[in-house]
Amino acid sequence: MNIENLSCNKSFGGWHKQYSHRSETLNCDMRFAIYLPPQASGNQKVPVLYWLSGLTCTDENFMQKAGAQRAAAELGIAIVAPDTSPRGDNVADDEAYDLGKGAGFYVNATEAPWNRHYRMYDYIVNELPELIEATFPVSQQRAISGHSMGGHGALMIALRNPERYCSVSAFSPISNPVNCPWGQKAFSAYLGTDVQRWREYDASVLMRDAEQTVPALVDQGEADNFLAEQLKPEALDAAAKAREYPLELRRHEGYDHSYYFIASFIEEHLKFHADYLSR
Amino acid sequence: MNIENLSCNKSFGGWHKQYSHRSETLNCDMRFAIYLPPQASGNQKVPVLYWLSGLTCTDENFMQKAGAQRAAAELGIAIVAPDTSPRGDNVADDEAYDLGKGAGFYVNATEAPWNRHYRMYDYIVNELPELIEATFPVSQQRAISGHSMGGHGALMIALRNPERYCSVSAFSPISNPVNCPWGQKAFSAYLGTDVQRWREYDASVLMRDAEQTVPALVDQGEADNFLAEQLKPEALDAAAKAREYPLELRRHEGYDHSYYFIASFIEEHLKFHADYLSR
Repeated sequence: MNIENLSCNKSFGGWHKQYSHRSETLNCDMRFAIYLPPQASGNQKVPVLYWLSGLTCTDENFMQKAGAQRAAAELGIAIVAPDTSPRGDNVADDEAYDLGKGAGFYVNATEAPWNRHYRMYDYIVNELPELIEATFPVSQQRAISGHSMGGHGALMIALRNPERYCSVSAFSPISNPVNCPWGQKAFSAYLGTDVQRWREYDASVLMRDAEQTVPALVDQGEADNFLAEQLKPEALDAAAKAREYPLELRRHEGYDHSYYFIASFIEEHLKFHADYLSR
Repeated sequence: MNIENLSCNKSFGGWHKQYSHRSETLNCDMRFAIYLPPQASGNQKVPVLYWLSGLTCTDENFMQKAGAQRAAAELGIAIVAPDTSPRGDNVADDEAYDLGKGAGFYVNATEAPWNRHYRMYDYIVNELPELIEATFPVSQQRAISGHSMGGHGALMIALRNPERYCSVSAFSPISNPVNCPWGQKAFSAYLGTDVQRWREYDASVLMRDAEQTVPALVDQGEADNFLAEQLKPEALDAAAKAREYPLELRRHEGYDHSYYFIASFIEEHLKFHADYLSR
């Protein structure tokens, strides 16, 4: 597999690195970042937390702003941060921030012009972990987390692939995309008008019908401007209660949608994942 | 004093806030950020760490990337991050990244066109602390720290004002600006050709002649691209040894000039300052 190192920074005794590679799934060159804790070496494989970012983000936002490397170094967990959409001059885009580049929504698009590149679901579930596990000193113990659009992605992907992930968490996820403006706009464009196909990518729908479970932690700020219209954690909560799904949903007074919120609680998420990754 | 709140994010139980105010010293509107830990309240004043950023930065880089709020919240220290130069359409600038806006070098410029606005020394030493101490629940216990150009600023300001600061620290400071290209370019423009005036703003020169001392901690990465040509910690080290100045200079293998380095050691700097701020 062809992979090119773009940058390398020592961080908390481990290494933050950015790579470029050719994605067959997405039919374009993609960048991702990995944090390798000091425990990772040729002799010791460490588990991996996949982090899915929100609208407009790249691999950089989480790595620069979340303050996660400190706890990852302590706990011996690698973190992989992919980009949020296919990229490049040939990739379809839209002027809006919530469609096209930076807004892949972690689905496999079926509609033109998006279906040429926008297959982020397959990329995150299959191609990227295969590349990571073939390239770096990591085990096949995987956890997944994300923020906002990426919180939707993390929950949805874990719910559809419970055998692949030890645990899942999310900050401020788009919990019920079929019922909010961001989700309806993106799913209309990427998946077409058949709402039944949208439901395959909706965490609240999937949780209600889940056969297997993945331990789940969700944090939501009460001062988040997107809470009522876009995020709808109450839908996820209702699904968890109906299914008796192992979801811990925490609401935090005063916190907003920003990385200051994520930074404040990322250590707790990493410890939550470490608990399941070490079993 | 006229001050306008621009943003507000809850962070580790405290608050990150950005403000705009009219600076009389700089003759323009300025933005700064403050982190108020949960301990700060009408009844309890907390000490303040002033953070001076490097070339091209604003108040945002440190607050978003250093991961400092966690330790500041634990230790009960406020952090103030000013901008790195005067700002605005009327302010003189240069096309280069290392002169003009984003590159104030914390001096009082004497040369045209810079002397209309570039008085960052007076702003950091006098006007900003006066505003902070009149506006927020903070004490007059002050520490100062910074990175690169801001490391120069922190050391130089503490050395010239030992009665105003309990402690000083720096990451990758420009330690001997009169002897490096960044310093020579900026000091020529801002201060003119008389090298004797440059020396008033050079930490290595000031430390060698210091009458009073301020406990000092400096961290330097060994893989820093600017180390040999621009930073010259050996000059500071020699000055400290000649003067028996209380400087701890630490060199760290593998670390570069980035915020990943700062994040890795910022907790140790905050604990260093907390030790002196609480005396």
